[in-house]
Amino acid sequence: MRLKMTVAYDGTDFSGFQSQPRCRTVQDTLEEVLSRVADHPVQVTASGRTDAGVHAQGQVIHWDTDSPLPVDRWVRVTNHILPKDVLIRSAEEVKADFHARKDARWKWYRYTWDTRRVPDLFLRRYTTHWPHSLDVNAMAEAGRHLVGTHDFTSFSAARAQVSHRVRSLYECRIRCPQHGVVALDVVGDGFLYNMVRIIAGTLADVGGGKIAADSIPAILEARKREAAGRTLPPEGLTLMRVGYGSDQERNFLS
Amino acid sequence: MRLKMTVAYDGTDFSGFQSQPRCRTVQDTLEEVLSRVADHPVQVTASGRTDAGVHAQGQVIHWDTDSPLPVDRWVRVTNHILPKDVLIRSAEEVKADFHARKDARWKWYRYTWDTRRVPDLFLRRYTTHWPHSLDVNAMAEAGRHLVGTHDFTSFSAARAQVSHRVRSLYECRIRCPQHGVVALDVVGDGFLYNMVRIIAGTLADVGGGKIAADSIPAILEARKREAAGRTLPPEGLTLMRVGYGSDQERNFLS
Repeated sequence: MRLKMTVAYDGTDFSGFQSQPRCRTVQDTLEEVLSRVADHPVQVTASGRTDAGVHAQGQVIHWDTDSPLPVDRWVRVTNHILPKDVLIRSAEEVKADFHARKDARWKWYRYTWDTRRVPDLFLRRYTTHWPHSLDVNAMAEAGRHLVGTHDFTSFSAARAQVSHRVRSLYECRIRCPQHGVVALDVVGDGFLYNMVRIIAGTLADVGGGKIAADSIPAILEARKREAAGRTLPPEGLTLMRVGYGSDQERNFLS
Repeated sequence: MRLKMTVAYDGTDFSGFQSQPRCRTVQDTLEEVLSRVADHPVQVTASGRTDAGVHAQGQVIHWDTDSPLPVDRWVRVTNHILPKDVLIRSAEEVKADFHARKDARWKWYRYTWDTRRVPDLFLRRYTTHWPHSLDVNAMAEAGRHLVGTHDFTSFSAARAQVSHRVRSLYECRIRCPQHGVVALDVVGDGFLYNMVRIIAGTLADVGGGKIAADSIPAILEARKREAAGRTLPPEGLTLMRVGYGSDQERNFLS
């Protein structure tokens, strides 16, 4: 049978999701523990890789097993063995043709800044320290210009080799969940390499007065990496949720 | 001159505050970095030790230096060198007779439980996973019986060697800061060894229906460790603040 699992991880001490020799990765950690529980070699397929240092609340994986363990016991048994920085949040049996990457309809990412001069130590692993004031209204305005279907070449790492750089952004919102903390939520049908971190860097430059909010259309139009702002570090980035349902079932940012 | 510093730390990867040979401790980490910045050997005195795994938002230390570095630069320079799990929150020059331990008038500790079946990965370092329902009203009622000046022998580790076990608890409150998370805040003039973790364990037993809320006076009266509940693990415990002002200046739980 095929299992779909929702996985959370603290990316701080991982060299990213994808398996690599001589590195601690989320994929290798999951495969090692699931293989022990299933009692056969396990290979997992994720909705997509995340870079070193990037976190997940709701990464989705699928894998196949003939283990007789009931589905509802997978969560408890696997979490008991996994290290403290990886957690299976849920498991369910899915049809044999479900595919965590190919069937993903949308992804929701969050980028979080701690703008206090001295950061909150307990948020430090999961936020980017940014001890500068941010004009959140200007950032929100800039974000609205990004929503829609665009060629996002300007917001993609120059070294990315992708021929088709048109993506749809469904949501791009700015919130202040607590005093001094600013969060960017983006939902889209797919993201180019480093795209969320470049959007975050560009909006932070808007928030700091270095880029005008209404210059976003021209930045998109330029289709050049140099037109947008800097790439921000990975620690502020979290993959929140991956959606597989119909468009009507989209339940973004909730 | 004498400096007073407020220090936060994530206790997860420390063998407690107090210096110990062949262990990573908060005191050794602070003294090593402050000695480098001050350019002379530094010994710090804290308001009190915290055990292995216990966190702090507002530990207070004092130490002496003749370094010419202006007080307001100590925070930035020291934080630049400290590892990510220790942070100087503030620094100020104090009178030469200020003493972080002897002058402390009260301490505020918080104990936090994550009661969800699958915990929040991003709270996991700072909460105790307790996948059982807790009756917070019963816990609050039990907590009110603990407020006041009592002999806390029943709430002290049996191996503690202290002749005088009378302490005053000023506040003992239960809150639910978010769905599934329960927090206990206690403020007192001093705490015996493991006292907060035994109070937390006793209140968790009250919340789970194993101990009646109105049996707290009898537990205090017994003056025996066995009368109270279990000692809970350190990861849920945080030293929030240490007070030095007059009683009128007490600004608890804010």
